[in-house]
Amino acid sequence: MNPQGLIDRLTEALGPSSVLTGERLQLRQTQDWSGAQAAQPQALLLPRDTAEVAVALRICHEHGCPVAVQGGLTGLAGGANPMEGEIALSLARLDRIEDVDAVAGTAIVQAGVTLERLQQHCVELGWAFPLDLGARGSCQLGGNAATNAGGSRVLRYGMMRNLVLGLEVVMPDGNVLTMLDRVIKNNAGFDLKHLFIGSEGTLGVITRLSLALVPRQNQQCTALCGVPDFDAALGLLRHAKASLQGLSAFEVMWNSYFDASLRAHGKSAPLADPYPVYVLVESVSGDGANADQAMEAFLEKAIEEAFVADAVLAQTGAQQEELWSIREGVSELLALAKPCAAFDVSVAITRMDEMVQRLEETLRSAYPQQQHLFFGHLGDGNLHLISGPYPDPADLEHAEELVYSCVGAFEGSISAEHGIGVVKRDFMHHSRGAAEIELMRKLKSLLDPKGILNPGRVFNTPHEQLPAL
Amino acid sequence: MNPQGLIDRLTEALGPSSVLTGERLQLRQTQDWSGAQAAQPQALLLPRDTAEVAVALRICHEHGCPVAVQGGLTGLAGGANPMEGEIALSLARLDRIEDVDAVAGTAIVQAGVTLERLQQHCVELGWAFPLDLGARGSCQLGGNAATNAGGSRVLRYGMMRNLVLGLEVVMPDGNVLTMLDRVIKNNAGFDLKHLFIGSEGTLGVITRLSLALVPRQNQQCTALCGVPDFDAALGLLRHAKASLQGLSAFEVMWNSYFDASLRAHGKSAPLADPYPVYVLVESVSGDGANADQAMEAFLEKAIEEAFVADAVLAQTGAQQEELWSIREGVSELLALAKPCAAFDVSVAITRMDEMVQRLEETLRSAYPQQQHLFFGHLGDGNLHLISGPYPDPADLEHAEELVYSCVGAFEGSISAEHGIGVVKRDFMHHSRGAAEIELMRKLKSLLDPKGILNPGRVFNTPHEQLPAL
Repeated sequence: MNPQGLIDRLTEALGPSSVLTGERLQLRQTQDWSGAQAAQPQALLLPRDTAEVAVALRICHEHGCPVAVQGGLTGLAGGANPMEGEIALSLARLDRIEDVDAVAGTAIVQAGVTLERLQQHCVELGWAFPLDLGARGSCQLGGNAATNAGGSRVLRYGMMRNLVLGLEVVMPDGNVLTMLDRVIKNNAGFDLKHLFIGSEGTLGVITRLSLALVPRQNQQCTALCGVPDFDAALGLLRHAKASLQGLSAFEVMWNSYFDASLRAHGKSAPLADPYPVYVLVESVSGDGANADQAMEAFLEKAIEEAFVADAVLAQTGAQQEELWSIREGVSELLALAKPCAAFDVSVAITRMDEMVQRLEETLRSAYPQQQHLFFGHLGDGNLHLISGPYPDPADLEHAEELVYSCVGAFEGSISAEHGIGVVKRDFMHHSRGAAEIELMRKLKSLLDPKGILNPGRVFNTPHEQLPAL
Repeated sequence: MNPQGLIDRLTEALGPSSVLTGERLQLRQTQDWSGAQAAQPQALLLPRDTAEVAVALRICHEHGCPVAVQGGLTGLAGGANPMEGEIALSLARLDRIEDVDAVAGTAIVQAGVTLERLQQHCVELGWAFPLDLGARGSCQLGGNAATNAGGSRVLRYGMMRNLVLGLEVVMPDGNVLTMLDRVIKNNAGFDLKHLFIGSEGTLGVITRLSLALVPRQNQQCTALCGVPDFDAALGLLRHAKASLQGLSAFEVMWNSYFDASLRAHGKSAPLADPYPVYVLVESVSGDGANADQAMEAFLEKAIEEAFVADAVLAQTGAQQEELWSIREGVSELLALAKPCAAFDVSVAITRMDEMVQRLEETLRSAYPQQQHLFFGHLGDGNLHLISGPYPDPADLEHAEELVYSCVGAFEGSISAEHGIGVVKRDFMHHSRGAAEIELMRKLKSLLDPKGILNPGRVFNTPHEQLPAL
């Protein structure tokens, strides 16, 4: 197979402005936020619509050339990073919000629309698209679906999977699968869209999405609670679920993370005394409700029940942001601990405390000089851990093995929301049994028999037909 | 293949009390609620646990004998009805609620536990399992997952799919796939459980489920609204979504249905004047909130905005049941219209009114003597229609074709929540494209290459290896 023949065919089909090679390619970003290894792709394709994506894939398929599918490149698992000999296919130009049904609260968008743009567009129409994560300004909705993105409002609105009503997908051979339902209920046969959601671009390329919107909530209440211990945090969570109808976030920070975040941002503590655990509670509501009153009643009872020792309730939007910045200031902490390991695991919340203790002991005894900072979305059983710095890559790898085997022993998931990509591929057996992985492989072979879509992501797929370079 | 050899092997493996044939078989119910054609199965298997299900399937698989998987037999699509030569496999004895985590709000149950039993069990622990449907006393959780059951609280809690955290599934060859996650977030590779949810027992037999619970809501408010037209009902829905935080049901009834239901139950009209459309609104809340006050404010504004002309708010539990009985009295109406066609379709809610008008015109002109009663879960875009009586089966079939082709023209689904089974199999092309159906078939072949599990359900699967009788 002659790679130049491939590039020529792609250029002929898409036009020269949509097939970047050489210098034009070098000016473009083609790596994700993971810092994982990446190669220069043979070319970067910038198709303009579904038909061009289909043509591009058909040609690559005929040439047996592997394709790295790229959204907003904000992934943390290296899944979008091109490997040697791959063509990169970007969805960036499929950036139209095609239709918003402001009566029903649904939207049809192209895959390259950024999360933030849809959020803003909906607000103007009295609706909201409730998925939210730090990368909102760059991440794209197609990528959000391909990776089943989570974020800090999962507790209320679910993962991206729950917000997708339908998909349009281009299969590896260029055939288009149109499943753009606009209703939540469709039990006419298997619900195929779920195959593609969360499969990290290995089974098909998402080109359009039908999404569910929620009514815009104008009021937002944020409180930071100092909590005596983890059991109290669990009691507080149950209390919040039962009595805060608009509960939208329940974020936990162990004191090591909390203190490090304050230090990194040069801020003073918002509560007078230190506590072993901190919880950030957020609740939203519409016009009718009195959100502050509900939150105050919630906090009062929480103090009465000794779930909370002290709390501060944000009085202004600026104060809300201030409180959230302690939780969201992860990038600064990552920078300080570099090179570090950033974990995103999940476990049944009743076992989380025990697992954190075990992880802390294990890491501290193996790596006493490093920081090990714990925080997460407690409401979802999702724990994050920043551990580092590890100047020696072997140590970093060893720390990963320590953490993932511990998570496996607690029957947790080694990837709650970030996905597997390439960086967690070799640890998957800690979370998934051999029969599950075998079935995943079979599905991959069924939908992508030539193995051209994101090969080597999620699990090793033997790819024998790399074009000779 | 000798069928007696098969029965002997099954009896040896499971014990004679778990393999019913002959007279013992005739005493058992083996048909579902659909009234669709059914044959006497070769035997009814009543395994006691996952291991016995696995053994039974392994033996049937070796003999190439087709298996009809049976839950609570409340399905309306004929999927559980045995076909000639099949073995029926009932999950009824897998009826243990194995574990409820009352801190995290999750449960592990066996597939044969009835919906109502789990509901009651959870309430005692301060939690609720929020799926709810008329068949709650008989339907089983495994069947609820296999058919992705809906019901009247989907608006708030989603379909069964949204409540399933994990599954244990026995594959057609007897291998067991264990995916009993207890957290909402697990992005470690493909989320395989979604393959089995809603696939109507054609890909594997669900034996255990991990389920998400929600905090018990003590207060419930129910109002019946007389609505001037369908546009007002859409305005009311948006108003309800935005201002009723506990909105849990939004049921629409066209006046033909409403009047027929009152007549069938011998009840007087709860509102003084008649209206073209009626909406039943329900909202739930926990201890803290004042649900009545919120509902009153909601109704006041709805009348102000002319979404509602008149309304009645139930003051007691008995009054709530009274209002719900108008909506839920479907079985009486079905009985009166027999033999009738009962439809369960969905369409984007902004197109629902036009579709109802088109359906009504079409049916009325073809079948002026019959009743055509429309109602549904408006919040979900889910429309139900009872049409009949059709003494001549050819007329009934023709009415089905009229309805489903119209639904297809409106890009709706021919099955919102009841599934395809056998009764809608020949109409699937109205809702799913050829590429989708082709991929469904490929998945069936991949997971069940011998085609022994519920063959002929969802779509025709050629089954050449029926045992000689």
